[in-house]
Amino acid sequence: MAKRPGPAQRPAVISIDAMGGDLGPKAVVSGMAISASKNPDIKFIVHGHGPKLSELVARKRVLDGRVEIRHADDVVSMDDKPSHVMRHGKGTSMWSALEAVRAGEAETCLSCGNTGALMALSMVRLRKLPGVNRPAIAILWPSRNPGGFNVMLDVGADIRAEAQDLHQYALMGMSYARNGLGLQRPRVGILNVGTEEHKGRPELHEAHDIIAASADANKYEFVGFVEGGDIPSNRVDVIVTDGFTGNVALKTAEGTASFISEALRTAFQATPLSKIAALLAMTSLRRLKKRIDPRRVNGGVFLGLNGTVVKSHGSADATGVSAAIKLSWDLAQTGFSDRLAARLASTQSTGQSVNKTEAGLTPEKTDQGI
Amino acid sequence: MAKRPGPAQRPAVISIDAMGGDLGPKAVVSGMAISASKNPDIKFIVHGHGPKLSELVARKRVLDGRVEIRHADDVVSMDDKPSHVMRHGKGTSMWSALEAVRAGEAETCLSCGNTGALMALSMVRLRKLPGVNRPAIAILWPSRNPGGFNVMLDVGADIRAEAQDLHQYALMGMSYARNGLGLQRPRVGILNVGTEEHKGRPELHEAHDIIAASADANKYEFVGFVEGGDIPSNRVDVIVTDGFTGNVALKTAEGTASFISEALRTAFQATPLSKIAALLAMTSLRRLKKRIDPRRVNGGVFLGLNGTVVKSHGSADATGVSAAIKLSWDLAQTGFSDRLAARLASTQSTGQSVNKTEAGLTPEKTDQGI
Repeated sequence: MAKRPGPAQRPAVISIDAMGGDLGPKAVVSGMAISASKNPDIKFIVHGHGPKLSELVARKRVLDGRVEIRHADDVVSMDDKPSHVMRHGKGTSMWSALEAVRAGEAETCLSCGNTGALMALSMVRLRKLPGVNRPAIAILWPSRNPGGFNVMLDVGADIRAEAQDLHQYALMGMSYARNGLGLQRPRVGILNVGTEEHKGRPELHEAHDIIAASADANKYEFVGFVEGGDIPSNRVDVIVTDGFTGNVALKTAEGTASFISEALRTAFQATPLSKIAALLAMTSLRRLKKRIDPRRVNGGVFLGLNGTVVKSHGSADATGVSAAIKLSWDLAQTGFSDRLAARLASTQSTGQSVNKTEAGLTPEKTDQGI
Repeated sequence: MAKRPGPAQRPAVISIDAMGGDLGPKAVVSGMAISASKNPDIKFIVHGHGPKLSELVARKRVLDGRVEIRHADDVVSMDDKPSHVMRHGKGTSMWSALEAVRAGEAETCLSCGNTGALMALSMVRLRKLPGVNRPAIAILWPSRNPGGFNVMLDVGADIRAEAQDLHQYALMGMSYARNGLGLQRPRVGILNVGTEEHKGRPELHEAHDIIAASADANKYEFVGFVEGGDIPSNRVDVIVTDGFTGNVALKTAEGTASFISEALRTAFQATPLSKIAALLAMTSLRRLKKRIDPRRVNGGVFLGLNGTVVKSHGSADATGVSAAIKLSWDLAQTGFSDRLAARLASTQSTGQSVNKTEAGLTPEKTDQGI
């Protein structure tokens, strides 16, 4: 790893698509300002409506001299079909934001816009890493793990995943867990409807064997099948599944959390006594909220591309955008994109042998921290 | 509906498999006693280890003369493979419990045992309703609806579902919502990764058209695609999906709820002040717990069989068993099993025309309350 520049040498420029989020460019620029005040080294290239962005940036003193604005005439809207954006998206801020990563001007691209369009454009402009069939979107899921989070993927890049795709998700997810969460030997599980080996779909059984065989060579622990209830558990660090199931699970969990907090609020408003209790409990409830606040873990990472793309929640406010910027920064600092490429290349170089014992022959030198 | 006997005439005998639950027959008999003390009309046939059951039942005065005990030598364990139980399950309490429904001695069968085995045995002994390809397991999901619950199916009977299966789930689920929740015109939605019509898997698009075309004839409202976050919402009453996705969603929601309550407990124990707050808030928190307590909605209903089978949580305590008994009783009282059969038969008699406009020709007489 001696060749890799240390944190001090890595110029962390984040390329940000300021348009397309529900709250508009104002929330994005405010988020940039929060991050800039916490992190003296960070710089931005921001894409969108030039005059509007100049005005917003000028209002934030902390951004002085740290932001380059690139005007784009068009915006990808939430309703635009990905296929349409792929053909006609050239003048959009999203396209421009990806272009800066493609040209090597920025380490990471961040957008609050249309997920499908962002993935489609990322595939066209940045291209998939050699050997990757389906890129995936990984998120950090609040969990009982000491670090507080598990990695879950795919949460919506592709509605299908074959056994080999799930194996790639396992490799990409564990590389993310190693670089993003600092776990040396992540535990990987496959999401299924039961933990017994005979349960579930045929491609999951096939993936089970491939991922088990590849564990030693890639220095992760394979825990086998896990269930929905295990996603926030301390049984596993990386959960792999197809993007259909992962997306349903993610949105179901978000829906459940919001249903419960609503019910909690109602319960506390029920009687005068409960209102007093709520006042006294406020600090505790804030602590809880902070732990499960989706804004704190804002940012799905697109894995399997030449470059890192972070997708922020469409409804992210300044706090949420700032959290996504921090994630982008952290990934840029660890050189995650290069490490992931090396990890996948090392597996690919062993050919189809990953499901045979020869997978153990993967050169040791590629296993350092990727 | 004049031919149908009213509630007073329906002898509601529930056939109960007392073995196979995590807490053993004691929890089951205690649950029976709770139900018996609330409901003077209910009677039971209970299956399992005869001497043990006699002893447990003798201890509960309220069960005097209301319980028939049937001895079974064997028990289906949680680890038994469904295929094994189908071939060798004849001497088990589960088999015996289903047999009482098959013989017409009881209206409903209830078990806390192995779900896969119970479904397999139910299919073998009770047989599928004419025209049903895949039976499904439906549950009540706590929601923002006025009644407090939505119906979700399939949550784990079958890992696959084609478009026609999803249509049958829609019909079965809306019949359950009508009879179990008293909704005259249930709103039906298909679980997907987005609400736009171009999203998701091909079989979901096909199901979308079939279920839309069948809505008027079967007197439900079709709301189209819904997402994971809509499951506990007031946008929809019945959510249909394949058993793989449904099972993952259910277990993810349960896991999220338990993660949040654990975090809530931790938050309240953090400081002396928060401990006092917790004491004051206790009534409010109990109210919340009651609303989202899984024991209150205990019972997955197997739909699509000749007879009603209710699967209680394996870990159900007396309160949970009693809730499942109440659900079994309610379904028996509405004559749900016959109504569901009539609903499916009426749709089947219109042949494959459900996905054409002729579906509107379904005879009106079959639409009364089924």
